[in-house]
Amino acid sequence: MYPPQWLAAWVLLLHHGCAAGRPPQAASARTDIRDCSTDPPYLPPTATNTTARLAALRDAMRAHGVHAYIVPSTDAHMSEYIAERDARLGWLTGFTGSAGTGVVTQDKAALWTDSRYWTQAERQLDCNWELQRTTWIKSIGLWILEAVPVGGNISLDPFLFSIDTWNSYSQALHGSGRTLLPIETNLVDQVWGDQRPSPASGEIYSLPTAFTGSSWQEKVAGIRQQMEQHVRRPTAVLLSGLEETAWLFNLRGDDIPYNPVFYAYTLLTNTTISLFVDETRLAAAARQSLQAGCPGPLCVELQQYGQVGAHLRGYTQDNVTVWLGTEYTTYGLYSVIPQEKLLEDSYSPVMLAKAVKNIKEQELLRAAHVRDAVAVIQYLLWLEKMVPQGQVDEFSGAQHIDTLRQAQEHSRGPSFQSISASGLNAALAHYSPSNGSSRKLSVDEMYLSDTGGQYLDGTTDITRTMHWGVPTPLQKEAYTRVLMGNIDLSRLVFPPNTAGRTVESFARRALWDVGLNYGHGTGHGIGNFLSVHEWPVGFQSNNVPLTAGMFTSIEPGYYRDGEFGIRIEDIALVVEAQTEVVRRGWAKGWHGTGGLHQAGVGAPNGTSLRQHQSGEEPFLTFEVVSLVPYDRNLIDLSLLSPEQIRYLNAYYETIRARVGPELQRQQLEEEYRWLQRSTEPFPLGSAAATTATLGTLALASLLSALLTGLQA
Amino acid sequence: MYPPQWLAAWVLLLHHGCAAGRPPQAASARTDIRDCSTDPPYLPPTATNTTARLAALRDAMRAHGVHAYIVPSTDAHMSEYIAERDARLGWLTGFTGSAGTGVVTQDKAALWTDSRYWTQAERQLDCNWELQRTTWIKSIGLWILEAVPVGGNISLDPFLFSIDTWNSYSQALHGSGRTLLPIETNLVDQVWGDQRPSPASGEIYSLPTAFTGSSWQEKVAGIRQQMEQHVRRPTAVLLSGLEETAWLFNLRGDDIPYNPVFYAYTLLTNTTISLFVDETRLAAAARQSLQAGCPGPLCVELQQYGQVGAHLRGYTQDNVTVWLGTEYTTYGLYSVIPQEKLLEDSYSPVMLAKAVKNIKEQELLRAAHVRDAVAVIQYLLWLEKMVPQGQVDEFSGAQHIDTLRQAQEHSRGPSFQSISASGLNAALAHYSPSNGSSRKLSVDEMYLSDTGGQYLDGTTDITRTMHWGVPTPLQKEAYTRVLMGNIDLSRLVFPPNTAGRTVESFARRALWDVGLNYGHGTGHGIGNFLSVHEWPVGFQSNNVPLTAGMFTSIEPGYYRDGEFGIRIEDIALVVEAQTEVVRRGWAKGWHGTGGLHQAGVGAPNGTSLRQHQSGEEPFLTFEVVSLVPYDRNLIDLSLLSPEQIRYLNAYYETIRARVGPELQRQQLEEEYRWLQRSTEPFPLGSAAATTATLGTLALASLLSALLTGLQA
Repeated sequence: MYPPQWLAAWVLLLHHGCAAGRPPQAASARTDIRDCSTDPPYLPPTATNTTARLAALRDAMRAHGVHAYIVPSTDAHMSEYIAERDARLGWLTGFTGSAGTGVVTQDKAALWTDSRYWTQAERQLDCNWELQRTTWIKSIGLWILEAVPVGGNISLDPFLFSIDTWNSYSQALHGSGRTLLPIETNLVDQVWGDQRPSPASGEIYSLPTAFTGSSWQEKVAGIRQQMEQHVRRPTAVLLSGLEETAWLFNLRGDDIPYNPVFYAYTLLTNTTISLFVDETRLAAAARQSLQAGCPGPLCVELQQYGQVGAHLRGYTQDNVTVWLGTEYTTYGLYSVIPQEKLLEDSYSPVMLAKAVKNIKEQELLRAAHVRDAVAVIQYLLWLEKMVPQGQVDEFSGAQHIDTLRQAQEHSRGPSFQSISASGLNAALAHYSPSNGSSRKLSVDEMYLSDTGGQYLDGTTDITRTMHWGVPTPLQKEAYTRVLMGNIDLSRLVFPPNTAGRTVESFARRALWDVGLNYGHGTGHGIGNFLSVHEWPVGFQSNNVPLTAGMFTSIEPGYYRDGEFGIRIEDIALVVEAQTEVVRRGWAKGWHGTGGLHQAGVGAPNGTSLRQHQSGEEPFLTFEVVSLVPYDRNLIDLSLLSPEQIRYLNAYYETIRARVGPELQRQQLEEEYRWLQRSTEPFPLGSAAATTATLGTLALASLLSALLTGLQA
Repeated sequence: MYPPQWLAAWVLLLHHGCAAGRPPQAASARTDIRDCSTDPPYLPPTATNTTARLAALRDAMRAHGVHAYIVPSTDAHMSEYIAERDARLGWLTGFTGSAGTGVVTQDKAALWTDSRYWTQAERQLDCNWELQRTTWIKSIGLWILEAVPVGGNISLDPFLFSIDTWNSYSQALHGSGRTLLPIETNLVDQVWGDQRPSPASGEIYSLPTAFTGSSWQEKVAGIRQQMEQHVRRPTAVLLSGLEETAWLFNLRGDDIPYNPVFYAYTLLTNTTISLFVDETRLAAAARQSLQAGCPGPLCVELQQYGQVGAHLRGYTQDNVTVWLGTEYTTYGLYSVIPQEKLLEDSYSPVMLAKAVKNIKEQELLRAAHVRDAVAVIQYLLWLEKMVPQGQVDEFSGAQHIDTLRQAQEHSRGPSFQSISASGLNAALAHYSPSNGSSRKLSVDEMYLSDTGGQYLDGTTDITRTMHWGVPTPLQKEAYTRVLMGNIDLSRLVFPPNTAGRTVESFARRALWDVGLNYGHGTGHGIGNFLSVHEWPVGFQSNNVPLTAGMFTSIEPGYYRDGEFGIRIEDIALVVEAQTEVVRRGWAKGWHGTGGLHQAGVGAPNGTSLRQHQSGEEPFLTFEVVSLVPYDRNLIDLSLLSPEQIRYLNAYYETIRARVGPELQRQQLEEEYRWLQRSTEPFPLGSAAATTATLGTLALASLLSALLTGLQA
């Protein structure tokens, strides 16, 4: 699945970015589906009547002296996916998109969301709501300044906003005579009342040792070692991200759809461990595992989820330093800690440790991808047979792949809502079919399937695009160029400490060459039975440099409004590369991994011209672990370079070697034959730029023909 | 010349960057040239005795109650090159590198600089100074915290630190119990006394109309229009950068070596224009031009240079908004303006307007590069003849190219100190030869020449690397891969609003493929008879997105300690590309320039998946305007792809077409013949990946040979 909207990226943009200060371009002459100018207004049947909810919220605002109230779409952990109980913006507005911000005053209400969701918002909002087609906090700030007079209070729940987002609002309102006022009572929750879904109550369980990279005690020891070695000597690490706590303790839950996490915070100090969670939900074995070391530095003290703020306040009375990640810690928790007791990084050391998979975790993820490939191959073969019969629609297709995955060993369901999009629907980024309105798959249209699975050993995510008939020249060219981009990035060799941001254009160049592009990110991290979008790995500006052991998706695409959409997505592991420097012994004294230069958001020039021995870390490249062939029907081989064809053939050999035996083990003989067919090596000779192969093969046959002619 | 150290990049790094919070790697086991452990200490003869200066500074610090004093290497305009009068750090420490920071306490003194300058610093510092091999402000902060007890004052001259740098120090000392105290009296200046060089006194003159892109009145009108159209309605723009004022008024001076600028500030309001400059230095015509519109909104009021702060304080008493660029405005000026009256962007609208050259400015720069190519070609031919005779050393070579440029029309001297480096010297980034110690050029070594000229119509900067004998296989391969990188970036087609940062890796990939890299930036902007490193264009994180009309250098390299150095640098103009989308009529409804995604430091994913009509701006590419062929002796053609060879041949055709006639006009017949020889098209057939050419030519000759054999 293509990468999520990273909230923090906006903040970066706001602070430094678009150095020219240029805001994102808004649609110029767009008409809303709704018509709020008539009486009664025209609204699509999908709109929600929010009049009563808004009236109740406005009462609550008046009672608290609040003139504008900001409602975000996220939860207290900055989760990408949220539980129904946290869908405050959805309940208040009717809009169910995953990213947006609502602001309510006594006489106005507006929703900000990005272009992925404009149509959806028009379909779901009623006329109480203005739709603002941007997500710039500056824009929200300007709207608020117009709507709220000087002296007014602008309020929000500080436990639902990251530090960076809070700062952006603070900056937008700075010096304006309005006050940004955090209120810990959430006014939407108050109004929502007992209609609000109950807290999660499912069991929180330990992952079996077979599926963990190391024990939680080893992980804790590693983090404590980092604390000791840090120049600031932090005494504690605060974990706000749900994945952080789940990973650290090898625990899983089901509080959020598709994500095996549970609501919790952790405060890991150099001598104690506090886990803030509803302890009644812990499975007996899980509790036993956590408390086996009690009393002692490896004893996990269980505390109530809601106590984290009070506990932190108490802890920071002393001479301590708390290390936290500013990208996803809320302002509410942050503001509890005195400034001089904070050690701020973008990501906590737990988030960074989780991002680099150890050998066992790598093996687990590889194994999950082999079984996942079996399910996807079954699906592709099934489609090949069923689509020409007109028996498949987007919804039934999605159901079928979910079922196939479910049948694989260690399956724990899909890792996100399957994207199954035929024809023009594939040009819509967030399209998922529903039972009621689902397009039939046809040999006359392209079909895009972006799906993934949760398995006890790993999370998967793969996109394939198909055409079972005769694609148009543009479809074939665009598909081939998307594939070329996927290949070019997958086979790239790059220095250690390279930021993904600086290399993701390799996935775009084949499209750029002819003036095409795609508007989403190129990849995201992925977990071991954790989130399908795992921070902070990937190719975006707020991702950390690529390091051996990280897994990322590589997923270029191309989308043509009203016609078709293409995306080719694989998961790849960052591995060490065998370069000529190593092979030919050039290593001695050679210069400059440029590691510094490539790292992070940028480094000054020249600074690492004179690299030292530390610069001689090995270069890196990718090993693709998704193991499903691409649609041969859509590949224009003449566009590929010999290097690209060689790469493709080597990849197909790997697929055969890894997935073939598993298909046979599962006695899927038809699928096995399909795989052999679909992974036939491509001839190198047919590339525009012919190679030695042509020299020896094609040339020989040409000569032979000529000589035959001569002899005749 | 490779790009400078951009101060601001450090700040970015500090705030957000190296998301992992990883500091630059320091040398692990490095020994200093100095030996301060012996008595007397061993110092190289190049070291400066700073004992008396330090004692005087410490007296001044005591008198001001200052416990640590921070001395930067820059001037009040954040200039890259500075005048001797501003070389405070150099005077105080003896260290003359262009980037560094000194901190002095009562009993300690330390200098921070980056790896380019470590050796130089060891040679120039005496034992009063610790050398700190990093430039992280966090590291400076930690050193200060150790050296200064709680309650101490850490002082600096606020007019020598940018806003961002000030903020970084402020953050580093925050909550530590020490005070960061700006002192407007510069303590180094006070101690330097009458030994300090006098202020510049040269004439400030108007550029002839033939060499300006538009009149200063048109430029002022354009900036005022931007002020009116800005949502914040700024009433004034403050110009701190010396290039800003020089560009805006079409004025030039010679206050700083190689840079035709003069000390000035400008406050451009919606109704007035204040130029802060020593008015006695203005040429009569310049003064007349500035005051032709008096009184009125196009009247330039001349005020004393030193009055800018007081004037700004007066101006901001009213209901005004001042727009400024935070990357290069000093904290001293910034802090004069009340926060709510500030409009902060990374760069002022003048800086951004200057970066995009209009048609006339483009033509001027192109013309300067044709004459510059003549001088460089003369030099290359001269080297070819003289080096084998053993008659050239680095210094005499540098003198010769300077002389050749000087003879070209409109020449105003070199645009920076020529880099002329033979053999292992070329592996040193900042190497410039001196008369005393200069290596002889030889047919047994590579030679790197990085030089540029100032002409009334444009500034140039070009690097060529040569070998007149038999290069080693590694030299040839590395050179070819550097060239491939230069070609790959130069021929890249990319969407509008692409940040240079996201595409500069194309210049590295051919090196990366075999495990090589270079540690400096890939390019920088350049001016019309202005700076050779012109903000904010280039490929770094704090550069603005590439836009048609910008000029940037493209300069990959490869450096091998103690052996050789390679750099190939051209200046290129960003132009619109003719893509298939345009040619084949694919434009209708196609998706996503990804402009948003590419802009600035990053944008969230998905946000521009559904691009709108505004997304259909033309794609861009580069037109190389440096017109000098590369050394054929160093090119391994078998490494180049057919596309790279075709590009090279087309570039050589352009060189012939543009420079050939100029050589003839200057009656340089031998150079003309050299050019023809040096720009012979390369055969496509010799590329590893053979093409249609092989099919028709090589194959034909092969067959012909075979048939001959058969017939015999």
